[in-house]
Amino acid sequence: MTEAEILERLKKRVRWPLNSPLIRGIGDDCAIYRARGAAEDLLLTTDLLIEGTHFLTSTHRPFDIGHKALARGLSDIASMGGQARFCLLSLGLPGNVNQKWIDSFYSGLLKLAEAHGAWLAGGDLARSPHITCDIVCGGGVPRGKALLRNGASPEDEIYVSGTLGGSALGLATNRGAARLQHLRPQPRLELGQYLRQRLHATAAMDLSDGLSIDLGRLCEASGVSADIHALPLFPGATLEQALHGGEDYELLFTVRAGTRVPRSFRGIPLTRIGKILAGSRGRVWFGGQPLAALGHDHFRHDPS
Amino acid sequence: MTEAEILERLKKRVRWPLNSPLIRGIGDDCAIYRARGAAEDLLLTTDLLIEGTHFLTSTHRPFDIGHKALARGLSDIASMGGQARFCLLSLGLPGNVNQKWIDSFYSGLLKLAEAHGAWLAGGDLARSPHITCDIVCGGGVPRGKALLRNGASPEDEIYVSGTLGGSALGLATNRGAARLQHLRPQPRLELGQYLRQRLHATAAMDLSDGLSIDLGRLCEASGVSADIHALPLFPGATLEQALHGGEDYELLFTVRAGTRVPRSFRGIPLTRIGKILAGSRGRVWFGGQPLAALGHDHFRHDPS
Repeated sequence: MTEAEILERLKKRVRWPLNSPLIRGIGDDCAIYRARGAAEDLLLTTDLLIEGTHFLTSTHRPFDIGHKALARGLSDIASMGGQARFCLLSLGLPGNVNQKWIDSFYSGLLKLAEAHGAWLAGGDLARSPHITCDIVCGGGVPRGKALLRNGASPEDEIYVSGTLGGSALGLATNRGAARLQHLRPQPRLELGQYLRQRLHATAAMDLSDGLSIDLGRLCEASGVSADIHALPLFPGATLEQALHGGEDYELLFTVRAGTRVPRSFRGIPLTRIGKILAGSRGRVWFGGQPLAALGHDHFRHDPS
Repeated sequence: MTEAEILERLKKRVRWPLNSPLIRGIGDDCAIYRARGAAEDLLLTTDLLIEGTHFLTSTHRPFDIGHKALARGLSDIASMGGQARFCLLSLGLPGNVNQKWIDSFYSGLLKLAEAHGAWLAGGDLARSPHITCDIVCGGGVPRGKALLRNGASPEDEIYVSGTLGGSALGLATNRGAARLQHLRPQPRLELGQYLRQRLHATAAMDLSDGLSIDLGRLCEASGVSADIHALPLFPGATLEQALHGGEDYELLFTVRAGTRVPRSFRGIPLTRIGKILAGSRGRVWFGGQPLAALGHDHFRHDPS
């Protein structure tokens, strides 16, 4: 049983009435809620960060854990072209965690929150056998303008921001710039808004589970396939880390063929990696070969 | 270090700018988000439900866990007089949980969601060493009309809905109607709207951690104290269970002296239990004696 299978099964059971204020639900980076009269659609996303699954206290300091808990949620807001509006945090803590740990955790979270206007609005606290964080992020996007996964068409060009494989390299080596990339991913909020407003991206999502699985999801949602080639590798990262390593939190997006995409946005490289093809829904080819979706699926691999 | 101390410390660190769309944050049952142009304020709340802390798989079936995960969140929406609009669920699952368990869990959650219009909009799935649920609930309330904890004034009359101590009795005995009260609490959404629209309640909150601690919180927020007497006990429950047992998920509310409160609302008893007093902020007296806040604080007692 994979995460995708659980979600497919769940999607079939969830039915909203016609007058529901929900515009978008399970299956994109964020849900979309449209309040009566509101100028903006509200993007909503939740992300778990769990000790033993997503991090270890031996390698991750509390400041980094707080940063990453929020960065994961903000990256989802970024991927739909939204502006951060608020966050809520549910935090489960074992008895051996002290005030200093908690202070440092919140320092990491609040610093990133302030930088992006993701004001902490509330949450929950509870005892838990393992450190458990669940972040809720709310974002605003002009009514009907959110970037979705399902808008890619044949001939669209595929781009990624930044470089790939850095987080996987950092996890493997725990050294240098790659380590920082793993511990302190930077959500691409301004870039997401630029993709929406200026480049009129046809589809977008963030790279949280690895390019091979995430691009497959975008293609699946859009009813298309993809042909990709040379990737922008993080210095020192392998092709495998760039294709299948997760947690890069860069943006993957498509634009109409011929769109003039600059080589970078505020210092972040934007690299064309391939093209959308008709048919073979959900398939991805790399250098002409079919690519296995080896990215991270929580329910396919047990955590080590 | 208690939950209240952690929250006090955190409140001091969180600063919103003047133009923030947040009307209310840490310290009430829900945060309040006011989108530009929207007719309604949006109530937002998150609640953790963790194996070993809040339930055991030996006594709680998956249907009940799904029900309770959502009921906790909806009870917070009810306490502020809101209507349920949506929910999101983050679910952490160990490797030994099978599809049947997951299906049954979602059956409990979706049945309650449908009954109250709390449409499931999304969430997250991850591996976790213990079953971990974090529910996010969104609710709507007319702009500026949410019931808060901080509106109680001296001479206001204090009421509770339903009966108290049933959940604690059910937890202790695992039998009969009290067991059902513990496993399947019913969020009081219609009642909360009635308190707001018809009784013009001055303050309200839900009883999740026990009357002694929750009434103290309401008094603390309102800058007042309370004098209470005879309580409506769940049949077979002790006074201690009614005063200090948590998870009754009834509503605690105050009204101006002389407000005509019916004896029941749609079959749910409404009982006057005392009166708000000036001064001695946060204190509660029962039968003239000072009452210790022995309700549940996650960070004062370790879970057994």
